[in-house]
Amino acid sequence: MYRTKTCGELRLSDVNQTVTLAGWVQRIRKMGGMTFIDLRDRYGITQLAFSGDQLTLAEGLGREYVLQVTGKVIERQSKNAQLPTGEIEIEVQQLNILNPALTPPFTIEDDTDGGDDLRMKYRYLDLRRTAVRRNLELRHKMAFEVRRYLDEQGFLEVETPVLVNSTPEGARDFVVPSRMNPGTFYALPQSPQTLKQLLMVSGFDRYFQIVKCFRDEDLRADRQPEFTQIDCEMSFVEQEDILQMFEGMSRHLFKTILNIDLPALPRMTWADAMKYYGSDKPDTRFGMTFVELQDLFHEAEAKKPEAERFTVFANAQYIGGICAKGCATYTRKQLDALTDFVRRPQVGAKGMVYARVEADGTVKSSVDKFYSQDVLQQMAQQMQAQAGDLILILSGDDAMKTRKQLSELRLEMGRQLGLRDPKQFSCLWVIDFPMYEWSDEEQRLMAMHHPFTSPKPEDIPLLDTDPAAVRANAYDMVINGVEVGGGSIRIHDAKLQEKIFEILGFTPEQAQQKFGFLMNAFKYGAPPHGGLAYGLDRFVSLFAGLDSIRDCIAFPKNNQGKDVMLGAPGVIDQIQLDELQIDIKKKSN
Amino acid sequence: MYRTKTCGELRLSDVNQTVTLAGWVQRIRKMGGMTFIDLRDRYGITQLAFSGDQLTLAEGLGREYVLQVTGKVIERQSKNAQLPTGEIEIEVQQLNILNPALTPPFTIEDDTDGGDDLRMKYRYLDLRRTAVRRNLELRHKMAFEVRRYLDEQGFLEVETPVLVNSTPEGARDFVVPSRMNPGTFYALPQSPQTLKQLLMVSGFDRYFQIVKCFRDEDLRADRQPEFTQIDCEMSFVEQEDILQMFEGMSRHLFKTILNIDLPALPRMTWADAMKYYGSDKPDTRFGMTFVELQDLFHEAEAKKPEAERFTVFANAQYIGGICAKGCATYTRKQLDALTDFVRRPQVGAKGMVYARVEADGTVKSSVDKFYSQDVLQQMAQQMQAQAGDLILILSGDDAMKTRKQLSELRLEMGRQLGLRDPKQFSCLWVIDFPMYEWSDEEQRLMAMHHPFTSPKPEDIPLLDTDPAAVRANAYDMVINGVEVGGGSIRIHDAKLQEKIFEILGFTPEQAQQKFGFLMNAFKYGAPPHGGLAYGLDRFVSLFAGLDSIRDCIAFPKNNQGKDVMLGAPGVIDQIQLDELQIDIKKKSN
Repeated sequence: MYRTKTCGELRLSDVNQTVTLAGWVQRIRKMGGMTFIDLRDRYGITQLAFSGDQLTLAEGLGREYVLQVTGKVIERQSKNAQLPTGEIEIEVQQLNILNPALTPPFTIEDDTDGGDDLRMKYRYLDLRRTAVRRNLELRHKMAFEVRRYLDEQGFLEVETPVLVNSTPEGARDFVVPSRMNPGTFYALPQSPQTLKQLLMVSGFDRYFQIVKCFRDEDLRADRQPEFTQIDCEMSFVEQEDILQMFEGMSRHLFKTILNIDLPALPRMTWADAMKYYGSDKPDTRFGMTFVELQDLFHEAEAKKPEAERFTVFANAQYIGGICAKGCATYTRKQLDALTDFVRRPQVGAKGMVYARVEADGTVKSSVDKFYSQDVLQQMAQQMQAQAGDLILILSGDDAMKTRKQLSELRLEMGRQLGLRDPKQFSCLWVIDFPMYEWSDEEQRLMAMHHPFTSPKPEDIPLLDTDPAAVRANAYDMVINGVEVGGGSIRIHDAKLQEKIFEILGFTPEQAQQKFGFLMNAFKYGAPPHGGLAYGLDRFVSLFAGLDSIRDCIAFPKNNQGKDVMLGAPGVIDQIQLDELQIDIKKKSN
Repeated sequence: MYRTKTCGELRLSDVNQTVTLAGWVQRIRKMGGMTFIDLRDRYGITQLAFSGDQLTLAEGLGREYVLQVTGKVIERQSKNAQLPTGEIEIEVQQLNILNPALTPPFTIEDDTDGGDDLRMKYRYLDLRRTAVRRNLELRHKMAFEVRRYLDEQGFLEVETPVLVNSTPEGARDFVVPSRMNPGTFYALPQSPQTLKQLLMVSGFDRYFQIVKCFRDEDLRADRQPEFTQIDCEMSFVEQEDILQMFEGMSRHLFKTILNIDLPALPRMTWADAMKYYGSDKPDTRFGMTFVELQDLFHEAEAKKPEAERFTVFANAQYIGGICAKGCATYTRKQLDALTDFVRRPQVGAKGMVYARVEADGTVKSSVDKFYSQDVLQQMAQQMQAQAGDLILILSGDDAMKTRKQLSELRLEMGRQLGLRDPKQFSCLWVIDFPMYEWSDEEQRLMAMHHPFTSPKPEDIPLLDTDPAAVRANAYDMVINGVEVGGGSIRIHDAKLQEKIFEILGFTPEQAQQKFGFLMNAFKYGAPPHGGLAYGLDRFVSLFAGLDSIRDCIAFPKNNQGKDVMLGAPGVIDQIQLDELQIDIKKKSN
């Protein structure tokens, strides 16, 4: 061992001990006849002091040099209350340069001067920053506590293969050409969905895995081509069992990691989530829930001559408002900025109506000329708006689309009002998802979760009459507006499965071709089963209070799917292409 | 929940309780007016009893049907001491067929009638067999205990990427064409070696990861294209620190999993391992160590006229023997079989000499006509052979090759004599590996471990004079003749690293091109570091007493790299090939 102590552990009680430390030079300060060096390792920072004859030892050192020093622990003259080791320093007697260092291209500080690109290129230096390393320490701890909890609950972690077959329905697969079987390809798993269901057929009863998954999709800010799931499945369970088990897991994580006692998770139906928040992953850290105003305004419109109508509301299928408490002081400029916000293509609203409740209780709105104070008062009452509040209203023909726009506006207002504190946590289950959603692109009903998701037993009769109304035994865990996990009870009845495929528009032959493998396995005795999967990256980034998942991943890829540090992906030898019997196609354009 | 109890937990103390169980039909027996069904789940087997009016419930059921039953726990008439639940049975009141089952293509028993191919095709049924599932339960437990130990020792589990770049030197990479960056490829990691060294440069201090690794090699019995490593690295350590740390881990595993108190691990130099066992992974469950006889026989030869010489020994650089205790009774047929064994191409010896020590102490050998009883007695004495023992001797020009042949013979004798009990464990460290080994193929010295392995400080002067004699700070953990783990202290000194590359025959430009990335990172302050990696599959198969790693992997691939259950690898759509901008090459022959 090159050290007897780490840089994080010495205290006043260690004074007079002779110790050996090893670490990196964080900072060098020369003051009068003294030189001070902050020596850093994973565990902390300890101040080294050089004076008199020892001053020469500190000469020629630079930032990030790797040192081994031996010296006596002494009490500091000027203590640093910010630092756990701030009461002591080391009177250095011996110094050994283990390795010199080039000056890093950015500072190794929590607030670094390095831009994203530079930090990614030199990720190994970026990871020296305490702020980044802490995220990965948190990740380790969370993964470990997940395993501890699930192990205690009798789950077995089973590794499923990474080299699998291409899956039907879903995102694009990454593929791996097989040298031993030329012309064929493995696929990297988008999730171990099929394999975990097979493990239930095998009687494994309680399975989990913290596992890398892969999707070859165009990348957005918060997407990575490889990501990590906490993948779980249980047999002989109903939805309630799963919710209880994984609510327990979340409670365990919140307690052991953040020392937060998580209250019982509220449950919200998907229908309510859409109605009150316009989102299937509502951020419930704050209220500002939607109030539907179409009845009020349509009634008012009906009483008016046609020429005086406010056609935007008169023709709108849906009119919804949110009440921003105390925001009547918003200036015209602020309101215009909000209008611009909802008009951005990413949101897509045509415009925004607003109304202020004045100190005297009167309502002043951007549609004053269309509606009487009486109507506006009724609106304010329905909105539960009080003096000083601001009401923001969106309307449209498509209720779902308008709700989603209003959701964006709500989240923006929450942000502006500081109601989305990353250190506050609001968790809930969203349940009763619809089985199907209509795809404009495919012109058919699509499985909202996946085609093995079971309908609610009481909705099974609706499969024949109104499939779009059928609710699924599907559930998401939502924290602070982020879907951290989701899953469903699976269908284990072959007849019901056939019917579901039929509704999804598959002929029996297509169903057999796409899903026959799993369906055949089910013929040998499938237990009732269900499960869910958490996105570990998201879960960690929530706990860390990060906006992006990137900084809780040691070596993330950029938006072009590149690891600029490793230089991956890269070109490979012709020899290797020949062995794989593949050619790179020349672009025809 | 479909059950109130599992099939493994009911005891005599539960009698008179009404319980609900769920599971699979293991066996149906009709006896007189009774029907008995063994119901199986992951936790055990419970006997269901049907009589009187309830007999009809058991009608029409078959093997592997999935049942839910409710009934009263009663004491059994004829108890089964083999079964933890063998004192009770369930008097069934209600039965619900959760799913019928086709008759499986092989029996779901520890000793199944299914052949390997069939079992692999229906792996989800094979995994129902308790014998197979126990291996995976063991794997879960071992991985969990590894994590617990390393977490307690301050190691952080850091996930490194699966989509990386192609690595120089080593086995063939699996590659993944990049759709977003056409013409380029990711590679799947053969190990996270580079990345874990970078994490040390980052100051992570203690890293581990249980991680999938990939090698596109032609498969042998005990190889899989994807396999799992326990990958570890530590900073500011010397070899002794690593050995202590991981000896501790092995001790923890043996204790928590097998309840075995592992004694301190003996350490054997590589030179001794080769000299006494002819292997760098000696099976030390039994002795039968090599005795070198060339001095004895060469001296005897030198005293003889040329015409009487036994040229095989006279010309052999190396003559080595093993002593098989009590095997003087081996028949001519058995000895011929051993000769055939060493002559097999996999072993490659030309012949075998044997000698029996008779009851009266005389030695009878296959080379009696060449050597006097006196010489043979000296030989027996050197071999420490006693009356009733059998001496087996191999000789050859190349000492290393002959030792390896003798090692095979030793292992075969150990097997025949029952000295290789899979329930007995003999662990040791093999240390002081040579830095280099000569490659006939490449006609140069190759790194035995990898090019970042550091030489023993005291051997550094030899780098200039006799590089082949330089020993490395490299070590393997060997259990029962299996290398379960290995690693080294890495070079952190840039100058020394350059010299090593030079000896390996790389020009500075080649070294920069192949390893520049890591070398550049090292310029920013690399700590002294080292580590090792265990093969989890092998470790588990040793603990499980399995010959092959295959049955401790849930979904293994066969020798053609295929998953016959999934049908992977498979063909992919032309659309996908087009998106990836690759073509499948037509075979030219």
